[in-house]
Amino acid sequence: METVNRQIVLAARPVGLPKESDFRLVESPMPRPRPGEALVRALYLSVDPYMRGWMRRNGTSSRTVEVGAVMVGGIVGRVIESNDPRLAVGDLVEGSLGWQDYASAPAKALRHIDPSVAPAPAWLYVLGMPGLTAYFGLLDICHPQPGETVVISGAAGAVGSLVGQIAKIKRCRTVGIAGSGEKVRFLTQQLGFDAGFNYKTTSDYYAKLKEVCPTGIDIYFDNVGGPITDAVIQLINARARVAVCGQISQYNLEQPDVGPRWLLQLVFKQAKVEGFSVFQYADRYEEGLRQLATWLREGRIKYHEDIMDGLENAPRAFIRMLQGENLGKQLVKIAE
Amino acid sequence: METVNRQIVLAARPVGLPKESDFRLVESPMPRPRPGEALVRALYLSVDPYMRGWMRRNGTSSRTVEVGAVMVGGIVGRVIESNDPRLAVGDLVEGSLGWQDYASAPAKALRHIDPSVAPAPAWLYVLGMPGLTAYFGLLDICHPQPGETVVISGAAGAVGSLVGQIAKIKRCRTVGIAGSGEKVRFLTQQLGFDAGFNYKTTSDYYAKLKEVCPTGIDIYFDNVGGPITDAVIQLINARARVAVCGQISQYNLEQPDVGPRWLLQLVFKQAKVEGFSVFQYADRYEEGLRQLATWLREGRIKYHEDIMDGLENAPRAFIRMLQGENLGKQLVKIAE
Repeated sequence: METVNRQIVLAARPVGLPKESDFRLVESPMPRPRPGEALVRALYLSVDPYMRGWMRRNGTSSRTVEVGAVMVGGIVGRVIESNDPRLAVGDLVEGSLGWQDYASAPAKALRHIDPSVAPAPAWLYVLGMPGLTAYFGLLDICHPQPGETVVISGAAGAVGSLVGQIAKIKRCRTVGIAGSGEKVRFLTQQLGFDAGFNYKTTSDYYAKLKEVCPTGIDIYFDNVGGPITDAVIQLINARARVAVCGQISQYNLEQPDVGPRWLLQLVFKQAKVEGFSVFQYADRYEEGLRQLATWLREGRIKYHEDIMDGLENAPRAFIRMLQGENLGKQLVKIAE
Repeated sequence: METVNRQIVLAARPVGLPKESDFRLVESPMPRPRPGEALVRALYLSVDPYMRGWMRRNGTSSRTVEVGAVMVGGIVGRVIESNDPRLAVGDLVEGSLGWQDYASAPAKALRHIDPSVAPAPAWLYVLGMPGLTAYFGLLDICHPQPGETVVISGAAGAVGSLVGQIAKIKRCRTVGIAGSGEKVRFLTQQLGFDAGFNYKTTSDYYAKLKEVCPTGIDIYFDNVGGPITDAVIQLINARARVAVCGQISQYNLEQPDVGPRWLLQLVFKQAKVEGFSVFQYADRYEEGLRQLATWLREGRIKYHEDIMDGLENAPRAFIRMLQGENLGKQLVKIAE
C-alpha cells in the first residue's frame, strides 16, 4: 500500500493558453476516509474544456480553483477502503475527485459503475458528463425533428461527436465543423455525419456552410463560438434553436472579444439561443444514461478515446485537448 | 364621395435615419372593392419601428416595400362600401392597409372592432399588435414569476410601456430604460414601474443597472439592442430569459455593428435569448385580446397616445417615433 499521494495542483493562473509550468506535481500524505467516505484509487482522469474556466481568478463562472489547490476533474477509480455500507472494496466508481492518485470522498458523491455495461473509461465519456451533455443539450434544448439540418462546432470533440450521432439517430442531416481533415474524415467516414469541413482551411465560413447546408440550418450545437458561430447565425432557418454548450474559441483570450451584433437575426427568424449546463439536468441523469447505454449496446453510438499515460502527463493532455490535437475523448490513464 | 385617394409611397430607400424626402404623397383613383372585399376609409394610422426594416432593399427581414409602392402600416377605419356579408357600411375595422386615405381589402383580412370595448385608436395599440406583442413576448417567452426583476429597454415606447405594466400585474419588480427624464417619470409616476433611468444621461449602464437591480436581472425584454443590451447581459441571473422584440439602435445603421461577445455568459447562467414576432401567436390572438381588454377595463393597464394630425404628416410622425420623440404610442389621425 502506497503512503504517498501524488497530486497535480494549479501553480499559476494561466495567461492565454495554459503552459505545463502553470501546473505542479506535489506529493502529500495518503488521505484517510472518514465515516461515510470511501478511499478511491484513480484509474482514469478526464480532461475537459470547462476546466480552463475554473483556472481564472474572476471567472464569471462561479467556481475557481485556487492557486496551490488540486486541479478539478472527473475520474473513474476503484474503492480501496470504505467506511460506508453502500461501497465495498473493489467497486468501480466515478466522481469529481481531481487530478490525483488517491482521494477520499463521501460515498454519496460517488457513482457506482458497472463494467459489464461498458469499460471503465466509457463512464467518463458516453456514460459520463460528455454523454449527458450531448444528450440533454441536443434533445432538451433543440428538440431535433426528422429531416432537420443540425450543425455542430467542435464536432470531433467528446461532446460534439456524440451530438452528431444522436442527431443521426433522430434522423437529422448532420454537419460537423472540426479542426483538421483527419477529424472531418473521422466524422463522415466513421461516425456517419452527412457532411463536414475543416475550419482551419476554410476562408469563408458562410459560403462553405451555405454549400453544405443548402436548406439552411435548423439546429446549431455550439462548442466553439467566435466567427464560426457568427456565420452559422446568418444561415439559420425560421424557429431555429441554438444550444450553447461551450465557447472554446474564447477560453484563452485575455481581453473580451468583439464580433458582429446579430440579435436582429433572432427576431427575423424567431429563433432561440440557449446556454446550458449538464448539471441542470441532474434529476434526469438516469433517463439519459439508460438511453445512452442502450444506443451503445445497439452499436448506434461509437466512441473513440485518446488516452495519454501517467498522472504526471495530465497537464500535457489538457493543453493538447485545448489545442484540439486529440481525436475523440481525451483521457489520462493513471493506473491499471 | 371623394374620387381621389391620397397615398404615401416610398420615394427612395433611406440611408441612415429616414428623411421626409424619402416619402412622397401621390394621388390615385379611388379603389373599387371587388367581390368579397370592403372599401375602408382610414381614421388612424399606426407608425411602428418594424417599418424601417421593410424600407431596406435586402433586409434579412423577408418583406420589403418597393420604391414607388404605398408604405405598409396598420390602420383603423370605417367601412364605406362592402361586397361581403360579414361587413356592413359603418363598421369599424382594423387591418394592414397602408399609409393612405382609402383602401379596399378582402373582408377576411379585416378585423371587426367594437368601439364600446375601447376607442378606435386603442385597437392599434393595447388591443392591436403592440398589445399582443407585449402580452405574448413577456408571458410566453419569459414566463415572469412573482418577485422576479424585469428590465425593459425602450420602456416608454408602445410595446415597452405595456410590457412593464403586465410585469407589474404579474407581481414582478419592473425597471424601465428610456431616452428622457420625462419618459422615466412617466414610467415610474404614471405606469407604476419600480425604477427607471435615462440612458442618454447615463455613462455607465452596467453600474446604473447594478444599482437599480440589486438582486440581478431575471427577465429582459429588449426593444433596443447595442450597448444597453450588452450591459444587461452581464447582470442576468441563473436561468434568465431574454425576449428580443426589436433592436431599434441598429435599424438606421448602414454598416453592421460590432459589440462584445457574451455567449459564454449564457452558458454560465443557463440563460436563453429568444427572438420573436407577434405573428407566430396568430392562433392565440383571441386569448391575448380578451385578457388585455379585461386589464384595460379594470384600469390595470393605462395607455397614452401621441397623435399627429393628417396623413401628409405620417412621414414626420414616423421619423419622430424612430428618434424616440414620442411619449406613448405614435399614431396619425387621418380623418374624424
